[in-house]
Amino acid sequence: MHVIVDFCIVPLGVGVSVSAYVSACQRVIRDAGLDHHMHAYGTNIEGPWDDVMAAVKRCHEEVHAMGAPRITTTLKLGTRTDRDQSMQDKIDSVNA
Amino acid sequence: MHVIVDFCIVPLGVGVSVSAYVSACQRVIRDAGLDHHMHAYGTNIEGPWDDVMAAVKRCHEEVHAMGAPRITTTLKLGTRTDRDQSMQDKIDSVNA
Amino acid sequence: MHVIVDFCIVPLGVGVSVSAYVSACQRVIRDAGLDHHMHAYGTNIEGPWDDVMAAVKRCHEEVHAMGAPRITTTLKLGTRTDRDQSMQDKIDSVNA
Amino acid sequence: MHVIVDFCIVPLGVGVSVSAYVSACQRVIRDAGLDHHMHAYGTNIEGPWDDVMAAVKRCHEEVHAMGAPRITTTLKLGTRTDRDQSMQDKIDSVNA
Repeated sequence: MHVIVDFCIVPLGVGVSVSAYVSACQRVIRDAGLDHHMHAYGTNIEGPWDDVMAAVKRCHEEVHAMGAPRITTTLKLGTRTDRDQSMQDKIDSVNA
Repeated sequence: MHVIVDFCIVPLGVGVSVSAYVSACQRVIRDAGLDHHMHAYGTNIEGPWDDVMAAVKRCHEEVHAMGAPRITTTLKLGTRTDRDQSMQDKIDSVNA
Repeated sequence: MHVIVDFCIVPLGVGVSVSAYVSACQRVIRDAGLDHHMHAYGTNIEGPWDDVMAAVKRCHEEVHAMGAPRITTTLKLGTRTDRDQSMQDKIDSVNA
Repeated sequence: MHVIVDFCIVPLGVGVSVSAYVSACQRVIRDAGLDHHMHAYGTNIEGPWDDVMAAVKRCHEEVHAMGAPRITTTLKLGTRTDRDQSMQDKIDSVNA
């Protein structure tokens, strides 16, 4: 099952700046070999369900390991069985 | 890693009423033996990360198997390493 | 336009415990006279669009006034034109 | 109060393809004169709170007027009082 997600991780208890934690997660996602695109309020990721979810879990583990005692993440997950659709296809179909 | 999630699954392409699909997911979550509480805009679930995520995946599989060609899910995921906290603990600490 | 929302406010830069801020928002919502139900990962609120959104804005103002320098909120918003539906109706239709 | 939001509108009861509705919302947001960036799972918008929220409401009105009987939207809202920060600033600070 292919999935497109939008992933926004928020560490709590580490002060007001969270960019170092978000940056660490960008590396986790890149190291997982997954297509992704960061925007101003999260990161789009696509790939096989288990691979994407494993990367999300590794992000939580990594951010805790960096010292964040608490994390709240928002995730949107899109799957479809009627046809293949990439992140770029979604953008193209709105622009068409 | 213990997680508390808020899970809201939305099937597309099946008309305006989605309650049959949400109800099927309630059974998936219950059959997984996970603590859960349904509210008017989703379901709180808590348990070990892998068990909760496996239930979310089974919900997508089940809703597709029921005929929904497309699904969009919203998931919030909370983890913490500083102390144990259940869903009820969170509610109690606000009410205190 | 009637709306049912799910509202989850997260103050950043105030440490790991956020219950005092969530509790202040419960008072804002109650004082607005809006039907609401708190769960373990947010609060369902229903009412006229403008009234609900005004309460959400007051929550941001109140939480900043309490000292939080940064806030990230997650909001789901449901509207429909085919029929009236309350928060309890949604729960009842899944349980039916 | 300046806000950066991430906005994802999902019409229900109109079949599996939602791109025409998302495209209409892009026009609403552009006509409101708000800075915005569409990605594969939503649209980042920034500006004064009341202007951004008015655009979100107009999107619901427009999508209902186009024939969608039901809408579920996911919105993230970020505000901060410690400093000014644009959408591009957020991306730059992660990349730095």
